[in-house]
Amino acid sequence: MYSVLHIIETALREDLGPGDITTNNLIAPDAEGRGIIIAKEPLVVAGLDVAKQAFESLDPNVVCKPACKDGDAVGNDSTVLEVEAKLHTLLAGERTALNFLQHLSGIATHVRSYADTLGDRGVRIVDTRKTTPGWLILEKYAVRVGGAYNHRMGLYDGVLIKKAHIAFCGGVKNAIECIRNNVSHLAKIEVEVADMEEVREAVGAGAEVIMLNGMELSRIKEAVAFINKRAVIEVSGKITKSDLIPLADAGVDIISVGALTHGATCVDMAMQIVVG
Amino acid sequence: MYSVLHIIETALREDLGPGDITTNNLIAPDAEGRGIIIAKEPLVVAGLDVAKQAFESLDPNVVCKPACKDGDAVGNDSTVLEVEAKLHTLLAGERTALNFLQHLSGIATHVRSYADTLGDRGVRIVDTRKTTPGWLILEKYAVRVGGAYNHRMGLYDGVLIKKAHIAFCGGVKNAIECIRNNVSHLAKIEVEVADMEEVREAVGAGAEVIMLNGMELSRIKEAVAFINKRAVIEVSGKITKSDLIPLADAGVDIISVGALTHGATCVDMAMQIVVG
Amino acid sequence: MYSVLHIIETALREDLGPGDITTNNLIAPDAEGRGIIIAKEPLVVAGLDVAKQAFESLDPNVVCKPACKDGDAVGNDSTVLEVEAKLHTLLAGERTALNFLQHLSGIATHVRSYADTLGDRGVRIVDTRKTTPGWLILEKYAVRVGGAYNHRMGLYDGVLIKKAHIAFCGGVKNAIECIRNNVSHLAKIEVEVADMEEVREAVGAGAEVIMLNGMELSRIKEAVAFINKRAVIEVSGKITKSDLIPLADAGVDIISVGALTHGATCVDMAMQIVVG
Amino acid sequence: MYSVLHIIETALREDLGPGDITTNNLIAPDAEGRGIIIAKEPLVVAGLDVAKQAFESLDPNVVCKPACKDGDAVGNDSTVLEVEAKLHTLLAGERTALNFLQHLSGIATHVRSYADTLGDRGVRIVDTRKTTPGWLILEKYAVRVGGAYNHRMGLYDGVLIKKAHIAFCGGVKNAIECIRNNVSHLAKIEVEVADMEEVREAVGAGAEVIMLNGMELSRIKEAVAFINKRAVIEVSGKITKSDLIPLADAGVDIISVGALTHGATCVDMAMQIVVG
Amino acid sequence: MYSVLHIIETALREDLGPGDITTNNLIAPDAEGRGIIIAKEPLVVAGLDVAKQAFESLDPNVVCKPACKDGDAVGNDSTVLEVEAKLHTLLAGERTALNFLQHLSGIATHVRSYADTLGDRGVRIVDTRKTTPGWLILEKYAVRVGGAYNHRMGLYDGVLIKKAHIAFCGGVKNAIECIRNNVSHLAKIEVEVADMEEVREAVGAGAEVIMLNGMELSRIKEAVAFINKRAVIEVSGKITKSDLIPLADAGVDIISVGALTHGATCVDMAMQIVVG
Amino acid sequence: MYSVLHIIETALREDLGPGDITTNNLIAPDAEGRGIIIAKEPLVVAGLDVAKQAFESLDPNVVCKPACKDGDAVGNDSTVLEVEAKLHTLLAGERTALNFLQHLSGIATHVRSYADTLGDRGVRIVDTRKTTPGWLILEKYAVRVGGAYNHRMGLYDGVLIKKAHIAFCGGVKNAIECIRNNVSHLAKIEVEVADMEEVREAVGAGAEVIMLNGMELSRIKEAVAFINKRAVIEVSGKITKSDLIPLADAGVDIISVGALTHGATCVDMAMQIVVG
Repeated sequence: MYSVLHIIETALREDLGPGDITTNNLIAPDAEGRGIIIAKEPLVVAGLDVAKQAFESLDPNVVCKPACKDGDAVGNDSTVLEVEAKLHTLLAGERTALNFLQHLSGIATHVRSYADTLGDRGVRIVDTRKTTPGWLILEKYAVRVGGAYNHRMGLYDGVLIKKAHIAFCGGVKNAIECIRNNVSHLAKIEVEVADMEEVREAVGAGAEVIMLNGMELSRIKEAVAFINKRAVIEVSGKITKSDLIPLADAGVDIISVGALTHGATCVDMAMQIVVG
Repeated sequence: MYSVLHIIETALREDLGPGDITTNNLIAPDAEGRGIIIAKEPLVVAGLDVAKQAFESLDPNVVCKPACKDGDAVGNDSTVLEVEAKLHTLLAGERTALNFLQHLSGIATHVRSYADTLGDRGVRIVDTRKTTPGWLILEKYAVRVGGAYNHRMGLYDGVLIKKAHIAFCGGVKNAIECIRNNVSHLAKIEVEVADMEEVREAVGAGAEVIMLNGMELSRIKEAVAFINKRAVIEVSGKITKSDLIPLADAGVDIISVGALTHGATCVDMAMQIVVG
Repeated sequence: MYSVLHIIETALREDLGPGDITTNNLIAPDAEGRGIIIAKEPLVVAGLDVAKQAFESLDPNVVCKPACKDGDAVGNDSTVLEVEAKLHTLLAGERTALNFLQHLSGIATHVRSYADTLGDRGVRIVDTRKTTPGWLILEKYAVRVGGAYNHRMGLYDGVLIKKAHIAFCGGVKNAIECIRNNVSHLAKIEVEVADMEEVREAVGAGAEVIMLNGMELSRIKEAVAFINKRAVIEVSGKITKSDLIPLADAGVDIISVGALTHGATCVDMAMQIVVG
Repeated sequence: MYSVLHIIETALREDLGPGDITTNNLIAPDAEGRGIIIAKEPLVVAGLDVAKQAFESLDPNVVCKPACKDGDAVGNDSTVLEVEAKLHTLLAGERTALNFLQHLSGIATHVRSYADTLGDRGVRIVDTRKTTPGWLILEKYAVRVGGAYNHRMGLYDGVLIKKAHIAFCGGVKNAIECIRNNVSHLAKIEVEVADMEEVREAVGAGAEVIMLNGMELSRIKEAVAFINKRAVIEVSGKITKSDLIPLADAGVDIISVGALTHGATCVDMAMQIVVG
Repeated sequence: MYSVLHIIETALREDLGPGDITTNNLIAPDAEGRGIIIAKEPLVVAGLDVAKQAFESLDPNVVCKPACKDGDAVGNDSTVLEVEAKLHTLLAGERTALNFLQHLSGIATHVRSYADTLGDRGVRIVDTRKTTPGWLILEKYAVRVGGAYNHRMGLYDGVLIKKAHIAFCGGVKNAIECIRNNVSHLAKIEVEVADMEEVREAVGAGAEVIMLNGMELSRIKEAVAFINKRAVIEVSGKITKSDLIPLADAGVDIISVGALTHGATCVDMAMQIVVG
Repeated sequence: MYSVLHIIETALREDLGPGDITTNNLIAPDAEGRGIIIAKEPLVVAGLDVAKQAFESLDPNVVCKPACKDGDAVGNDSTVLEVEAKLHTLLAGERTALNFLQHLSGIATHVRSYADTLGDRGVRIVDTRKTTPGWLILEKYAVRVGGAYNHRMGLYDGVLIKKAHIAFCGGVKNAIECIRNNVSHLAKIEVEVADMEEVREAVGAGAEVIMLNGMELSRIKEAVAFINKRAVIEVSGKITKSDLIPLADAGVDIISVGALTHGATCVDMAMQIVVG
């Protein structure tokens, strides 16, 4: 929670501004109520702690009672979270809490459909850096809740040699050798390749992870055969749900899918407010 | 730009953390390059200034040359923005700039399809508060770029009396009368109603905007006839693109559509980097 | 309280800096005391929660016992607030709490004298944007406590077409028509006019609020007669207390008075500290 | 400027919020203009750099041309500052710049009248900690511009032993001796006393500055005679302009006047905007 | 604590980033443990409250039980602090808490050896502005815990006329006279001098503190004799422990030693973690 | 620079507070000068950009001319950096710039002596998380400048299974197997072991890096022989300079040394200021 408090408070502030002019003028400050957040379609829940924190940022005395836990698949009309609080707090936090829950559950639900499609084949589906700015940690979390894995968090915690690096260094081999001498002994070196020549160069230079980017399935199979367990194999490039099983069958280890995050939309949820 | 700098810097920081370990170890700090951001599908552009600011936050000396302007509909493979900068800056800002552009252009493109469907009938499509936390101002902007209108920005700049307010005040009439004496003389009073009885009460109490929430088309027509220009009429509640023309034909003034923002996904864009 | 915590903490920090060198060197950290805040002249109290929050920001365990509530008119030597806390906390928070209370009660007291002068005539006295930078929300609050009303909070939550806008648009009519198509359906359009010709133009273009700025009383009466309930009428321009009743009698709806905030001075209050 | 940027940006943000809805909808973003800030009464100018910074925070390319300098006494209708900028920038910064200038010039003007009353008698008028929260550094600056001196900035940069400290330590002598051993060798020790017995104790214990608080003039003269240059003498307690010369004649060194800051009101200034 | 929370939270954030990937993947979120912080060499403890606050920033429910207090000299293997908390909290806070404690205790231990060497001769050892950026208040605190005194906190709370000021003003006398008329009546004027001529000038102009900078012992004695109690005498300039007694014997009042802070290294401490 | 601006500005603020009362009262605001930063002992320079940024944060118009570059070994009395600026800027930035330079160059100099001792044996000396809170990125940088390598930056970018993790998981094997399924495919798994049994378990479970913690040299040799290139070998635990070559000869790959950062002290540097 420590690292996401900031976005929660930003969200509350941008909605509340100097105050809720409807509620401030109509409802007594001390009036109590109950809010019941309900799924309005079948979905995988993610973000209960964030929703809870949104209400607690407004008033530390709210009582939040989750009716399920992150990762649960719930049906239409299921209760997800109950909140006992002042009516002012419920109305001030309602939209922000829902916006977080609907966005994160939207990702978890979307990811779950990929994970279920692939099933348990010892192959990982991973996310990318195509996340919503400001939401990095939250969306990476929702991906795990949905049942997939995280790639590196950002540019700072994983080596990924891409086209521009290769161009600057004068080839895959040069790039790999250059970075090996500088990077932490805890980091594996991943390199993005586009054809069989680069695959051969990457294996020859000892790349520990090889990303086959935008290759056709037949080429991927050729690369898998050539690499022959000498490196972890990741595939990437506009992969859809129907590609998952063929890719797994082709023998890759990791399938990275940008759409896990940037292709998800919000799921439908609503909050009923009981006055008094 | 003044009010969105914060989210841009947050986004850069969460991706960069203590630094890009691949680039820092492979590319000379002073090496120059050029980045060309390209649409990978037909789309409506939104967020050029945000993308520009992302690069400028990293280095005020970058040169950004937009090839179009916000609101332009561009075709697949069109160049959107060129950036001349150090390679370090290009690689550090690439993903963040794209994530902003793809998200905002995604909304603008989605909204444009609603606006085009409805056409010029003197009826407004407006957004809701179902926005991505942290992105309020940016998403509201993208909605306007797409060709729709903004509802209130948040709880602070517009009166909207909802169910919980009505319940607390003991009815539509009480709520309207109570707030009229307190709220700014610049604010119109909007009230959300669910049936004809509440419509009548709202008109009787002098509501200036009446939101018909979740009503069937036949009921909406009845309400329009009853209201008879005595108030602005807004409709709301899971409205889809195919509902737009029938609603306009029914005589409403405002159609609010949460999906403008929460139903949009990112459009596809990419950045080519030219080294040297 | 959520939106004013920032100014309270800024105030404490600027007074305390790295610490109170007198108290830190003379008083045991755990010594307890009691502070009694007293009015030193008749005044209208405003800011009790802010004073309370100032002490709580220093130590969440202080006990604050208000002896009255915001809006109460109290006599000289009346107790306003008692605080039980460590002596360190009392001495660190004393001046900041008093500075807030004296400033806000100063405004409330000043405003009350305007409200009492006008009495209950169905006419509103409203504030302006002539507030102390950093204090916007607090001063607007003190105005309400004193018995007057708020105009818009800032540039973002109300339309007010002024001279420069009219000049740029080429006249009152153009400006009103242009903004009607763009601004939220919840906003009323107010336009500032300086003579009868502009009044006529404003009414003709359907302005919902017309601000008569710096007009003589006879002209105001003429305008009121012409407008004839077709728009809400606001008057503005160096209005003093003795102008209030004549203006109300002339038939205006809203009287805006910059002096409500920028003409108020602090009222006198003091804190007695009981050691032990 | 480094230490006041924060309050300037806070002020702009609270007025602008998500944007100026009138100007954004009526005036072309690139339209240029000129703003001329004019004194509407005779006043002493203070805050030109703050006003300038307010406009520059909105757009670093504005051109500000001061027509005078801080400390200048200017007459009614004098031009104080000219600003060349986009109309959007002028309208967004106008009120904030004026609010700073009017508040700070209000203090400088008020202080100048005290300084002129006292004239050049080798006696200092100093301010107190009765400042507007958030404005400490700015108001202390305006006091110097007006021609008076600053007391300590806050609790951290000067020793002032007050009633509660004396009570806790068991007398003036104990308090002075206790702090002498702990406080920086660069700090003079000031003690607040209320009667002749405490004066004698303070002199005996070697206080370097003695504040005579709330004493009658005859008592003050007695204290001055007794102290006889062995300590700097400050007087305090609801001192008015007419007290200044008698106090100076009585032989005190320092006269502290809370009203320098908390008794000042804004002076009148306005900005004329020339379009195009 | 109020003024150091910021550096504590910065420290936690830079170590934790988006999360502890080892602990998050291996240890149940609710698993409890106990951490015992132990001195691994004889040392003077400083920073217990900071260590405590580091754990409490992660989880307000931790229980911290100090086994000693700041300023205590403890032996090798002594327990310093026990912490009962979730294992996640212990592992997240361990390194940060130790880094604070080892750094601050390192200074206190180092300072104590100076204080003990000098003993009780009525002469103060004081620190300088040679502190670790970001740590000013904490290191000044550790100096006091160690048994020495603080010089001014920064440039804002004490006058110290140095070479560049003297050069600009055209001599020691000019500089002193110029500042006397401007600076607070609570500040003593200190001037840094390099030879006997400047000493004479400083005394003649009434300097209240004279810093003999980089002078040989014989010159210092000459200066002490000349000054003859007319000013407080500070010596400065690469002073080592063996200089302390000769300097005290020479009659100086204040010995400032940059090495108190910038010559200290961390002392050795470790935290044992008991699982369950 | 992007990620360290914050600590630089914090440092300036804590030294300057509301302003330099000596300089503000003695030196004309526009007076120019030149500052020459000089090494007062032989040292390895680190932090030139930080020093430059400190001056530029005060005034973007300063001109900084480095006389060497980070990593250069310079002799006593060498010029390191020249700064042309207003005298106010030089005096405000002097101490902060020096404090950064002396601290970072202190580490680089200290690290260089380790690197030179070990020489070029294909073995890495790496730092630890024993850094100064708030300085993480800067100290890690200084370590690289000195000629050693960085271990992980923090808890977020490298897996290191320590005693508490092993205890909770019920053994080395369990811990390794558990984390392998969860952690990013880019991370190598490092485990800290204390005896040969744990070494065998770690190799058996496929640990990619094994940290031999606090083992005697003979045990280390035994471990190296057993591991036999199946994992990268790191040694740790109060390693001194004289241990480096024996450890390298024993066949380890990585030597981690906490003293690189926490055992360094500031090197001596000074700034001469030329007035005018």
